[in-house]
Amino acid sequence: MKSSLSSFNPYTSRVIDLGKGHFIGGGHFQTIAGPCSVEGNHIFEIASLLKSLGVSILRGGAFKPRTSPESFQGLGKEGLDLLACAGRENDMLTISEIMSERDIDLYRDIDILQVGARNCQNYSLLKALGKVDKPILLKRGMATTIDELIGCALYITQAGNERVILCERGIRTFEPRTRNTFDVSSIPLLHENCDFPIVADPSHATGLSSLVASCALAAMAAGADGIQIEVHENPQLAKSDKDQALTLGEFKNLMHDIESMHEFLIQN
Amino acid sequence: MKSSLSSFNPYTSRVIDLGKGHFIGGGHFQTIAGPCSVEGNHIFEIASLLKSLGVSILRGGAFKPRTSPESFQGLGKEGLDLLACAGRENDMLTISEIMSERDIDLYRDIDILQVGARNCQNYSLLKALGKVDKPILLKRGMATTIDELIGCALYITQAGNERVILCERGIRTFEPRTRNTFDVSSIPLLHENCDFPIVADPSHATGLSSLVASCALAAMAAGADGIQIEVHENPQLAKSDKDQALTLGEFKNLMHDIESMHEFLIQN
Amino acid sequence: MKSSLSSFNPYTSRVIDLGKGHFIGGGHFQTIAGPCSVEGNHIFEIASLLKSLGVSILRGGAFKPRTSPESFQGLGKEGLDLLACAGRENDMLTISEIMSERDIDLYRDIDILQVGARNCQNYSLLKALGKVDKPILLKRGMATTIDELIGCALYITQAGNERVILCERGIRTFEPRTRNTFDVSSIPLLHENCDFPIVADPSHATGLSSLVASCALAAMAAGADGIQIEVHENPQLAKSDKDQALTLGEFKNLMHDIESMHEFLIQN
Amino acid sequence: MKSSLSSFNPYTSRVIDLGKGHFIGGGHFQTIAGPCSVEGNHIFEIASLLKSLGVSILRGGAFKPRTSPESFQGLGKEGLDLLACAGRENDMLTISEIMSERDIDLYRDIDILQVGARNCQNYSLLKALGKVDKPILLKRGMATTIDELIGCALYITQAGNERVILCERGIRTFEPRTRNTFDVSSIPLLHENCDFPIVADPSHATGLSSLVASCALAAMAAGADGIQIEVHENPQLAKSDKDQALTLGEFKNLMHDIESMHEFLIQN
Repeated sequence: MKSSLSSFNPYTSRVIDLGKGHFIGGGHFQTIAGPCSVEGNHIFEIASLLKSLGVSILRGGAFKPRTSPESFQGLGKEGLDLLACAGRENDMLTISEIMSERDIDLYRDIDILQVGARNCQNYSLLKALGKVDKPILLKRGMATTIDELIGCALYITQAGNERVILCERGIRTFEPRTRNTFDVSSIPLLHENCDFPIVADPSHATGLSSLVASCALAAMAAGADGIQIEVHENPQLAKSDKDQALTLGEFKNLMHDIESMHEFLIQN
Repeated sequence: MKSSLSSFNPYTSRVIDLGKGHFIGGGHFQTIAGPCSVEGNHIFEIASLLKSLGVSILRGGAFKPRTSPESFQGLGKEGLDLLACAGRENDMLTISEIMSERDIDLYRDIDILQVGARNCQNYSLLKALGKVDKPILLKRGMATTIDELIGCALYITQAGNERVILCERGIRTFEPRTRNTFDVSSIPLLHENCDFPIVADPSHATGLSSLVASCALAAMAAGADGIQIEVHENPQLAKSDKDQALTLGEFKNLMHDIESMHEFLIQN
Repeated sequence: MKSSLSSFNPYTSRVIDLGKGHFIGGGHFQTIAGPCSVEGNHIFEIASLLKSLGVSILRGGAFKPRTSPESFQGLGKEGLDLLACAGRENDMLTISEIMSERDIDLYRDIDILQVGARNCQNYSLLKALGKVDKPILLKRGMATTIDELIGCALYITQAGNERVILCERGIRTFEPRTRNTFDVSSIPLLHENCDFPIVADPSHATGLSSLVASCALAAMAAGADGIQIEVHENPQLAKSDKDQALTLGEFKNLMHDIESMHEFLIQN
Repeated sequence: MKSSLSSFNPYTSRVIDLGKGHFIGGGHFQTIAGPCSVEGNHIFEIASLLKSLGVSILRGGAFKPRTSPESFQGLGKEGLDLLACAGRENDMLTISEIMSERDIDLYRDIDILQVGARNCQNYSLLKALGKVDKPILLKRGMATTIDELIGCALYITQAGNERVILCERGIRTFEPRTRNTFDVSSIPLLHENCDFPIVADPSHATGLSSLVASCALAAMAAGADGIQIEVHENPQLAKSDKDQALTLGEFKNLMHDIESMHEFLIQN
């Protein structure tokens, strides 16, 4: 594989084996999609549709970090079970956020563990995940610099787990219109400074569903190795982050565009 | 013209007549290129090469806003004359930053007037430019919100000049590795909230030449109507902003990529 | 004069002659107060009350930099005349924001010229004010670093006017509750790096009247040479910035506290 | 107790029993001091001197959150033992940062548990600390809003522990001169929105020892219920954060100033 663009180089990151024959990095691109939170049996319908569109990795939150202790905290263990089951039924890999080293055993049936922005510099958790034999998707904290993010990844690798994927999900700035500011330049900058694959999360980065497609395509053009997108069968009824979720129809269009862009960027 | 991407719509902005048969917006894409500062006769060599690569708009600073009054302040009137002359010789449009309403007459032979980030909310200047019969490229200030930027544009249009182009050039954040943080999501967000064409300036946004190409392509994928790039025949000898300028060779590669990307995005 | 506090040193800045026997810096403390905008004859009532409380410098905006061109833009020349007249009647100095070098002549009867945050790096204006024989109060821009602010002051002094006063008025951050974030540490940091007197503006820094008194006292404890406070006879009816203005009663209490704090800090 | 300042009200927060007859909040003021890290036996010398100056709470890090896994990570359990021993010998309370819920048992002999900025939104840790019968000092994260910080405190109180103290330690902004930007306005704003006592940490907020005293006094004037200061017998040899530590001599001067300011603010 090579690109027709002289500025685009998909070989800059290590290849990570995600299991079940799927890879990310070094030219292997992945789209991760699913609801913010696993809310119940809807995850089966979503999984099936995402699978039919070519998505190999199903996301869904079970333990949710919420600003208020009174907000919906996720379905917990039951959510993980539903997610794992929906993944198995559709032959998809699964990814879910882990918030505590004490919970590692609960994630036995989940394929990829995600560290959320709020725990990016939770070094105890990172060290514990360095002992786990699963890929880790590490999200950049809201005010984490590029150098700090790489330092966080090293906490995992130095503890023994080399399968680290970084995720740009926006940083906190003064701009009130978007939930965060999507730092697209972090993608080539990280590629210059480390060899971890980079996933972009335009859903959290912008917080607005109308901006997700544009930022997903921008991330790809900037060299992202993957994209993570929140999708919900009825965003207005979602129990968390409803403003940023795409409908299944919107995601279908985006998936088509992602494939076109990928084909454009990587040409034989 | 239409795009093969369902997420991409180049018709969201008004078409602006730049003169000499060139347009921006509504599907018309422009690459603006040139040195940070006009330093002397080098502008002729640069102009000629840029023209041969298909660039129609030549940039070059003559009155430079520098942090210290003891830094190089630009060649002033002489710089404008050199720029205008280089533009004329190569049949290119020219653009240069104006820092004071008192200087408007000096820019008689310059085609497009640029308002820099530091003067984005200099409302006296904006009102004065509303009386000028030239297109205005208005750069977003370092801490200017999207709503404020649109407000700034309205100061120009309400004074009578409808030919306003907005420019995303990065915002100030905590990240120390890049000069600014390139807010790529501002491009679709501005398209949603106003109909001015949007130019992206990845040179100032990142401050690092190695990130410019990736961010330029990202901006295009996000829907930018144009790109502004700093180019210098020998960046290490540039009198200002040397870390962000592309060499002529690097720019040639990028120009090829910009054309490929544009062709991909806009397909018949 | 000396302080009983070993950490407090009011002699670090130059003394600036403000005229009419008033000084700021080097131990001379000033409270500047008045409405955001001069709205009409109310300025006479406010001035008289402020004078009776010991205020020597009356502020009031006549040319207002507003985010939207459709917001109240100030009374212009009429506002300056009302302000100057209210100052003269009450034997007070006056200060008002100037937005354009073209307006300098209009400020003939105003004692101190203020450069607002949006024009902090408007170098053309700064150079023009370097030729004016009046003290200049230069406000820090929303995203202006300490080093840049000092650079801005040097544009004025190198053009010939040594009477520059710096003003910390808050910087833009991610915090949504306050209009800006009051960077109190800038006060000792500026004192370490230049010898200009420093005024704090807790009204703009916080945008909330309930926080103004605390931040004014904090600024004094951090070494500010002066405080600028927005006061309005009926804040809810103010034509601009109503959430941050103190009532005359609140200001009377604060003025008492400012005097107590000043007495505490500077003891014989 | 009452204040002579009408703007100053030390009764806004709940009183928290810290043990051994010490309290914070509701007019009870505390100075917390000690080295960034417990490095060995030096903690006994520092503790003894701090005690002689009137400090009741000794700080010292044993488990250190460092950006790189290769930096000094603290003495761990041994550091906690040294700290507890130094506290006991000098009849002082002790405080140290806890980074993992798994470590709670190790802190048996420590009086107050500190949650660092990087773990501010580590909700698993917060919930676990809600089950602990010790006061918790919760530091604001680098990009945590006031509302989010209060949400974090509620995770602790709703799990059963009402003894929560909040700590303003600076937020991340664009300013490169200081390590963080000390948000002094957060003190009155938090007092308005919750009743937890507020401690200010000017050492981390500024990162520069020369700014610590000014910001400590500013915090007091803004209504802080306590101050936390890093002190080292030889800052240039400190194993972490050497630029921000005060020498014992500098701290002695500051302690005198803190007492004078406290006496001024709270008068009979």
